[in-house]
Amino acid sequence: MTAYSRVLTIGTTTRRQLVDITNHALKFVEDCEVRDGLLTVCVPHATAAVVANENERGLQRDILARIEALFPQSSEYAHNRIDDNADSHLAATFLGHTRSFIIKDHQLVRGTWQNIFLVELDGPRTRREVYFSIVG
Amino acid sequence: MTAYSRVLTIGTTTRRQLVDITNHALKFVEDCEVRDGLLTVCVPHATAAVVANENERGLQRDILARIEALFPQSSEYAHNRIDDNADSHLAATFLGHTRSFIIKDHQLVRGTWQNIFLVELDGPRTRREVYFSIVG
Amino acid sequence: MTAYSRVLTIGTTTRRQLVDITNHALKFVEDCEVRDGLLTVCVPHATAAVVANENERGLQRDILARIEALFPQSSEYAHNRIDDNADSHLAATFLGHTRSFIIKDHQLVRGTWQNIFLVELDGPRTRREVYFSIVG
Repeated sequence: MTAYSRVLTIGTTTRRQLVDITNHALKFVEDCEVRDGLLTVCVPHATAAVVANENERGLQRDILARIEALFPQSSEYAHNRIDDNADSHLAATFLGHTRSFIIKDHQLVRGTWQNIFLVELDGPRTRREVYFSIVG
Repeated sequence: MTAYSRVLTIGTTTRRQLVDITNHALKFVEDCEVRDGLLTVCVPHATAAVVANENERGLQRDILARIEALFPQSSEYAHNRIDDNADSHLAATFLGHTRSFIIKDHQLVRGTWQNIFLVELDGPRTRREVYFSIVG
Repeated sequence: MTAYSRVLTIGTTTRRQLVDITNHALKFVEDCEVRDGLLTVCVPHATAAVVANENERGLQRDILARIEALFPQSSEYAHNRIDDNADSHLAATFLGHTRSFIIKDHQLVRGTWQNIFLVELDGPRTRREVYFSIVG
């Protein structure tokens, strides 16, 4: 077994945004030529997250709206005495900075409607990083 | 080190449902005879999730009720212009399609009250898949 | 490749509390001398969680307040007919008992503002366990 990693750098254009990174994950799995193992996708950020779901325009709006419903922008947060992005940190904490995927017979195991997204929660940013790791 | 995987196929009977898959995970760990490593449990679905918690009938009702409270069924979602299950996708996105567990001395590390569940969010379905992977 | 693990035992002092365990994770990565791999942090508890975010006093208050907002203490839960901590189980189920991190060039990949926390949801407890696992 071996461990491989790759870094992807992404610029984002709005405060909250979903960026589909599925093709980068698939390319990495293909390049590594690992038959069976584990792919982990991580962001080294406290105001971004990683999720997996369908890439449908309406659903993307629903996900971003639900983030606002559960973690609303507000001046009331204690963290906002020294900053203005407590809602971004809260959404990132609950959504999580990482998701794992199984690799079986050289293929990433995922559903037809299961794409992988970077979730920008405090953009726009010129430089968000996504780390892909495979052990297998 | 080696990587092992196994697929479990499950039928579900209601729209939202918790299915305890702990014994399948324990059997897989036993069969693999790995001393130390990592177990990852994943669903390749955009309207299902994996969680770990207590298997108590009342708590199961509370978990399903909290899913409805945070991700209510509604005709208002943008995704529901083309489908009727935006709430299922939202709950799956936030809960996550995967959970990881440590294997130590041939045992799955988990608490007394920590069972593993498939969370059906858009059932009933005749064929839900759960993938188990061990690297170790 | 090899698999390593370590257990940390922690006492907590209030019902809900964030305990920064970043230095324990960093020390474990340093001690294992793994160049590339995966660190997984797990709690074997149904009323505790693991998250990653900024260690800022105000934000810690915001995270705990948001847990109460989304998973309020209440006597109305079905689980509370036999216990009094349904809210703790619910928050643990949604936050998750585990987070994964990539190790690259002997370093834990994390952001400047991305610390690792045990989330106590039903304390105080004299003995909470955190498991660290590295495969790589």
